[in-house]
Amino acid sequence: MNSTTTFDLKAYLKERADEVDLALERFLAPDPQSLGPTVEAMRYSVFPGGKRFRPVLALAACEAVGSARERAMAIACAFELIHCFSLVHDDLPCMDNDDERRGRPTNHKVYGEDVGLLAGDGLSIWAFYVASLSPDDLSAGTLRQLIQELALASGHPGMVGGQVIDLAAQKSGQIDGPQLQKIHAAKTGALIRGATRCGALVGGADAQQLERLTTYGEKIGLVFQITDDILDHLEDPEAVSYPALFGLDASRTMAREAVQEALLAIQPFGPQAEPLVALANYLLTRTT
Amino acid sequence: MNSTTTFDLKAYLKERADEVDLALERFLAPDPQSLGPTVEAMRYSVFPGGKRFRPVLALAACEAVGSARERAMAIACAFELIHCFSLVHDDLPCMDNDDERRGRPTNHKVYGEDVGLLAGDGLSIWAFYVASLSPDDLSAGTLRQLIQELALASGHPGMVGGQVIDLAAQKSGQIDGPQLQKIHAAKTGALIRGATRCGALVGGADAQQLERLTTYGEKIGLVFQITDDILDHLEDPEAVSYPALFGLDASRTMAREAVQEALLAIQPFGPQAEPLVALANYLLTRTT
Repeated sequence: MNSTTTFDLKAYLKERADEVDLALERFLAPDPQSLGPTVEAMRYSVFPGGKRFRPVLALAACEAVGSARERAMAIACAFELIHCFSLVHDDLPCMDNDDERRGRPTNHKVYGEDVGLLAGDGLSIWAFYVASLSPDDLSAGTLRQLIQELALASGHPGMVGGQVIDLAAQKSGQIDGPQLQKIHAAKTGALIRGATRCGALVGGADAQQLERLTTYGEKIGLVFQITDDILDHLEDPEAVSYPALFGLDASRTMAREAVQEALLAIQPFGPQAEPLVALANYLLTRTT
Repeated sequence: MNSTTTFDLKAYLKERADEVDLALERFLAPDPQSLGPTVEAMRYSVFPGGKRFRPVLALAACEAVGSARERAMAIACAFELIHCFSLVHDDLPCMDNDDERRGRPTNHKVYGEDVGLLAGDGLSIWAFYVASLSPDDLSAGTLRQLIQELALASGHPGMVGGQVIDLAAQKSGQIDGPQLQKIHAAKTGALIRGATRCGALVGGADAQQLERLTTYGEKIGLVFQITDDILDHLEDPEAVSYPALFGLDASRTMAREAVQEALLAIQPFGPQAEPLVALANYLLTRTT
């Protein structure tokens, strides 16, 4: 099952991230209509990008069900725009009040708090426009489902709701294991799960394929969060996290088991799912 | 053309606003999934509502082209949710820093700045979910167009962009007539135009009908803004506004002419457009 020896994940990730960047350039081109600093401020938090993890998952899920990944490019970029929007608003003074991100001043430090707020709003709205650019041959039902998946993953039933319950939990100072899992599943997991599902949907997944890739997405989201927590824990052992609540060894075991469950779920896809297999294994190696 | 003598606009507006409120209750029901205070904070800025002007326009445009207004209810409510989201973010300390709205504490005064920000985010995202609940019999093309119209009207090419250029203009202290019109067209006009267009689209408008109702929506948006400015001007003559830039008499003339153009555009619709006629005339009477 572990095919990392034959599959060059690093090259793969670079190639896919470049493709996503090109598409994002197309979907959010520099201002053609003299809208003042709006588009510039939005682009500031989209370029240059990071790993483009969520869109890469969407593209890989689309290929896993046997379709050309280009079909998933619009919805993949929509999830990335939601991710970028969430970072801009997370950094605002009333949230994490961060001055730097990825070695650059945060959006509101450059454009001011008011424009930073609006740039985030613009990115979140534009995600839905970009999602609507999914292939013309989709049925109304599938297009509807894509829009709904994107909203459910990013809105109050997903990411936004997870952020609110996280804030409430931080303020109360009482977070136990089940609550941490609930917060993470909504705050981080929902976008990862949603991007995977939507990639499968535009790829024409049948119900069983969709279910398998949903499981994969959920487990991968969990692994992503646990390994992130482990990395953070080594820097700040006091913060609420998987290792703080469950211990370092138990957290590593949870991550390993989640990867096994993810791999089991996509086993029937065979070689077409090779990148998904490599991605799952890669997440695990971040902390070992 | 002026049918306000036979048409009871006040009763009509009340009835329609009540219908919209009922639908919004359905689309944003109290939290079924224990998402903490998220849904409560979102609902706080949706209920109780005001005139529900944008959704009422969408319903009336749908009826003007001969369809049942229920067809437009989802997209009508989507525009209202965008309007509510914009008010929540407008009131934040980094924007207008308002403590009260419609005689109640603003969202962030009740729930805190962080939750207020996220409640606004949640409303903006949920608008797209609700838009996707438009009738099942719509073609993929029409559904796509609805999502795009909503995003174009509310995002950086519309409302959000208008807010950013407004901020920039306020800071520079230099706003002339054309610039004021450009700001208003994006900041306020785009949602009113978009709601009217989308009501027509779900109602099955042909290209010519859509064009006529687009003109109506644009002119009505202009009248809305000019009359708002006139009302504000009487309280604060120093603020940048239509009467401050063009004079009170010229502003009133502009509003009257815009109403005439709006009425001319929808003349061919006959009695089915009676509410649209009454709405246009009503806006004018606010300031005379």
